Amino acid sequence: MAKDKKLVEHITAMDEDFAQWYTDVVRKAELCDYTSVKGCMVFKPAGYAIWELIQKNLDERFKATGVENVYLPMFIPESLLEKEKDHVEGFAPEVAWVTHGGLNELQERLCVRPTSETLFCDFYSKEIESYRDLPKVYNQWCSVVRWEKETRPFLRSREFLWQEGHTAHATAEEAEARTIQMLNVYADFCEDVLAIPVIKGRKTDKEKFAGAEATYTIESLMHDGKALQSGTSHNFGDGFARAFGVQYTDKDNKLQYVHQTSWGMTTRMIGAIIMVHGDDSGLVLPPKVAPTQIMIVPIMQKKEGVLEKAEELRSVLASNFRVKVDDSDKSPGFKFAEQEVKGIPLRVEVGPKDIEAGQAVVVRRDTREKTIVPFDKLSETCEALLAQMHDDMYAKAKAHRDANTHVATNWDEFTDILEKKQGFIKAMWCGEEACETAIKDETGATTRCIPFAQEKLGDVCVHCGKPAKHMVYFGKAY
Amino acid sequence: MAKDKKLVEHITAMDEDFAQWYTDVVRKAELCDYTSVKGCMVFKPAGYAIWELIQKNLDERFKATGVENVYLPMFIPESLLEKEKDHVEGFAPEVAWVTHGGLNELQERLCVRPTSETLFCDFYSKEIESYRDLPKVYNQWCSVVRWEKETRPFLRSREFLWQEGHTAHATAEEAEARTIQMLNVYADFCEDVLAIPVIKGRKTDKEKFAGAEATYTIESLMHDGKALQSGTSHNFGDGFARAFGVQYTDKDNKLQYVHQTSWGMTTRMIGAIIMVHGDDSGLVLPPKVAPTQIMIVPIMQKKEGVLEKAEELRSVLASNFRVKVDDSDKSPGFKFAEQEVKGIPLRVEVGPKDIEAGQAVVVRRDTREKTIVPFDKLSETCEALLAQMHDDMYAKAKAHRDANTHVATNWDEFTDILEKKQGFIKAMWCGEEACETAIKDETGATTRCIPFAQEKLGDVCVHCGKPAKHMVYFGKAY
Ligand SMILES: [Zn+2]
Ligand SMILES: [Zn+2]
Repeated sequence: MAKDKKLVEHITAMDEDFAQWYTDVVRKAELCDYTSVKGCMVFKPAGYAIWELIQKNLDERFKATGVENVYLPMFIPESLLEKEKDHVEGFAPEVAWVTHGGLNELQERLCVRPTSETLFCDFYSKEIESYRDLPKVYNQWCSVVRWEKETRPFLRSREFLWQEGHTAHATAEEAEARTIQMLNVYADFCEDVLAIPVIKGRKTDKEKFAGAEATYTIESLMHDGKALQSGTSHNFGDGFARAFGVQYTDKDNKLQYVHQTSWGMTTRMIGAIIMVHGDDSGLVLPPKVAPTQIMIVPIMQKKEGVLEKAEELRSVLASNFRVKVDDSDKSPGFKFAEQEVKGIPLRVEVGPKDIEAGQAVVVRRDTREKTIVPFDKLSETCEALLAQMHDDMYAKAKAHRDANTHVATNWDEFTDILEKKQGFIKAMWCGEEACETAIKDETGATTRCIPFAQEKLGDVCVHCGKPAKHMVYFGKAY
Repeated sequence: MAKDKKLVEHITAMDEDFAQWYTDVVRKAELCDYTSVKGCMVFKPAGYAIWELIQKNLDERFKATGVENVYLPMFIPESLLEKEKDHVEGFAPEVAWVTHGGLNELQERLCVRPTSETLFCDFYSKEIESYRDLPKVYNQWCSVVRWEKETRPFLRSREFLWQEGHTAHATAEEAEARTIQMLNVYADFCEDVLAIPVIKGRKTDKEKFAGAEATYTIESLMHDGKALQSGTSHNFGDGFARAFGVQYTDKDNKLQYVHQTSWGMTTRMIGAIIMVHGDDSGLVLPPKVAPTQIMIVPIMQKKEGVLEKAEELRSVLASNFRVKVDDSDKSPGFKFAEQEVKGIPLRVEVGPKDIEAGQAVVVRRDTREKTIVPFDKLSETCEALLAQMHDDMYAKAKAHRDANTHVATNWDEFTDILEKKQGFIKAMWCGEEACETAIKDETGATTRCIPFAQEKLGDVCVHCGKPAKHMVYFGKAY
C-alpha cells in the first residue's frame, strides 16, 4: 500500500502550486518528456495517442467541409519569407535558420517553417490561373518551429505539431465565410469532443496574426483562471495575394487577386485538456479522445476464472470502446492509482465475488461514482456513463468558467478583480491600441477577444474613460 | 474531342522515354510538383491522399504487432549525431545544418534529422532502467531531410515523408525476430495492398545501413527493369546501445545492453506504384490505396434524370467504396481520359439508355474491360471487379518481374544480360566487398540483396571465379 500511495503523492496539489501540479501530471501520466534538444520535447505514447485521436476527429470535420490534405516543404527561402512585410516582421525574430546543406554553405538561408503562408502563396501563384481553379481549400498536418526562449510542455515548445489550413477564394465574402466556418469547426470540436467550453470572438489589431486583416479566436479558461488561445482563423483579404502575385482570371477574363485564409490548431490542446479537466489525482481525459476509455482491473486475479472473465469482458467491450485489461503483477490499489493518474475515463473492477453475483463495478474517473452493473448490461452502461461523463465534464468546466468571469465597469473594479480573483474580465474598451498596451503594461492582462456575443456594460472605456467601442474579454494568458 | 485527346497526348510513351513518361504521369495525375525550395516537392491532394491510405493501412498493421506511436524532435545536436562512428560517417555528408535560432548563433549546430536512431537512443537511455521496461516498440510518422544533389519526384528528394520504427529489446534473439517480423509486415503490405511483388533478403555489408549489424530489404522491379529498394529493416545488435549507454538491469540485477532495431518505409512507394502499374494512358492505382476507387461519369447529363441517377448510384456505392460523380461541364470523353490519367480503378458510365435498361457500364482501368451491370448488382460487381483487379495487377507485375529475372553463371552471361536485357540478374558471389565494388564499377549493377530463398546456380563467383558463398540478386536501381 505504501507503494500504491507513492504514485499519487508525487503529484503536487493544484491549489498549492498549479505550475508544479501541471508538470507532475505531465510526467506521471507519461505524456511527454524533455530531450537533449533544448526546448524540444518527446511526445510519449500516452501523449501522442491523444494527438492521434484529435487529428482523426478534426480531420474528418475538415474533410466534411471540403478540405483536402497536402504537404509542403519544411523549409522557406529567406527571400520568400520576406515578401510580406508584416509577416516577416512577426516571424523572423523567432525562426531557426539552415545555413549549410551537407558540406556546403547554402547560397540562400532557409528557415524552418514557423507557419506556411509564404509557401502556400508561392504554390498557389503557380497553381491558380482561372476562376475554375478556385476555391483551393488545403490543409497540412506537420510540425513547425519557433525559437521560443521560455518553454512549457505542450503549451510552448520550439517545435510543436499542428495543422494549418490555407485557402484561396475568388471573393472577399467567400474568404470571410470560410474563416468563420473553420472557427466554428474548432469551437464545435472543443465543446463536443474535448468538453472544453470556448468564447468565440475577434482579436484586436494588436493581437492579430502577422499579416492578417482579421484574426478570429476561440478562448478557453484553465483551472487556474488563466486563458488559453485554443484555435485561430485568419482572413488575409488580398494582402498576401498582392505580395505574392496570386491572381486569377475571372469569368469576364479580368485579372483579379485571390482572397486567402489560414487556420490552425496545435498540440497545446493537450495542455488545455490537462488544465481544464485534471485534478489532484492526475489527468482526467475527455472520453472521446481517451486512448484507453475503459481499464478492466481484475481483483484477486490469481483465483480461477478471474482473468478469463476479465478477458471475456474486454472482448465484448472491444467492439464499442478502446479497452484494456491490466493483468500486470501490481496490486489492485496500484492499478487504481495508475488508471487515475493516466485519466482513463472508466474502470471496471471484477473479482471472484462479482463473478459469483454476475456483475462488475464500474467507476467513473471524474466523480469516482461507482455503479454495479450486471455483466449483460456492461456495454450499454459504459456507453451511457461515458456520454454522461462528457456532458458532466463540459458542464463543470463551463460552471468554473462562468464563476470566474467577472464584469469590471471601472478601473478600480478591474484592478481589484485582478488582485483578488482570477479568470476572465469583461469590460468596455475604447478600441485604441495605446490604451490596450497601457492596460497590459500596468496589469499583465491582455485582450483575449472581442466576443461575437457583445454586451453593453457601460458607455466608456474601463481604462481611459473615452467612449467605448467594444466589450472585450481581458485575462492573463498562457 | 481535340481537347480530350490532348490530355493523353502529353504523356510520353513508356517505351520511348521511361523517365519522361514518369515525369509526365506525375504531373498529369497531379500527384506532386516542384517548389521554390530546390530539391523539395509539394505533395498535392491526389498524391498526399495515396500516402494517407498507405499510412492508415501500415499503421494498423504496426499496431497489430504492438507498435506504439511517438514523436521525437526534428533536430539532432551535432554531438549526439557523432556518438556512433559508422552512423555519423554515413549521414553527416548529407544533412542540413541549423546554425542560428532567431537572431542568435547557436552554441552547437543542430542537424535536421536524416533518420532518428541517435535521438531514440538518447531517449531510451533515459527511459529504460529495468527489464520490466522492455521491449520498447515505438514508431513515428514524420519527414526527414537528406541533402541529395540529384532529385526525382517521390524517389529522391531533399525532404521526404516516412515512418521510422525504433525498438529496444532485452536479447539479441528478440531483436532479430522483430527485425524479420517488420520486414514481413512490409512485404505483406506491398503484395496485399500495393499489388507489388517483392524479393526478401539481406543487404551485403557494403549496402547495409550505416551503423547496422544486418539490414534486411524488400526489393521490387519497376516496369523499366530497374530495381527499387522498397522497405528496410535493420538489426543494430548492441552497437548503438554501447555508444549511447542504453542499459537495463536484468532479472539477476545485472546491467546489460539492450539490442535495437529500426525499420522504415517512405513516400517513394508512390513512385513504385507509378512505375510498376502505370501505362501509356497514365497512372493505374491499386484499388486498396486509390483515394477514389470508382468514378461515376454521367452520359448526356443534361437529360432529365441522369444526374439524379448518378447521385443515387454514388450514394449506394458510398457505403462500401470511395466513390465520386464527375458532374463537371467537360465532355464524357474528357472525363474518361482524366479518370484514366489519374488511375481511378473503376469507371461507371450511366446515361439515358442505361437508365432505361436498368443498368450501368463498368470499365476497369487496367484492362479497359467493360461489364454491363444491372443497377441492383452494382455494388457486389464493383467489389468483385476491384478484388479481381488487385489480383490481376499483382499477377501482371509478378509475370513482368519473372520475365525480367535472369540467371548468369559466368561473367560473359552477366555482361551480356546487362547489355541486351533488363531486370534482375541472379548470380553466385564470393562474398567479398572488393569483388562487389568491382562489379558495380564495371557495370553499374549493385547487389540488391542476398535473398532468403537461396538457389545454387554454380560453385564459383560470377565475377572473380573464387568459391561462391551466396546467390545474389544484382540490378540497376533507383
Ligand atoms: Zn481606452
Ligand atoms: Zn567474387
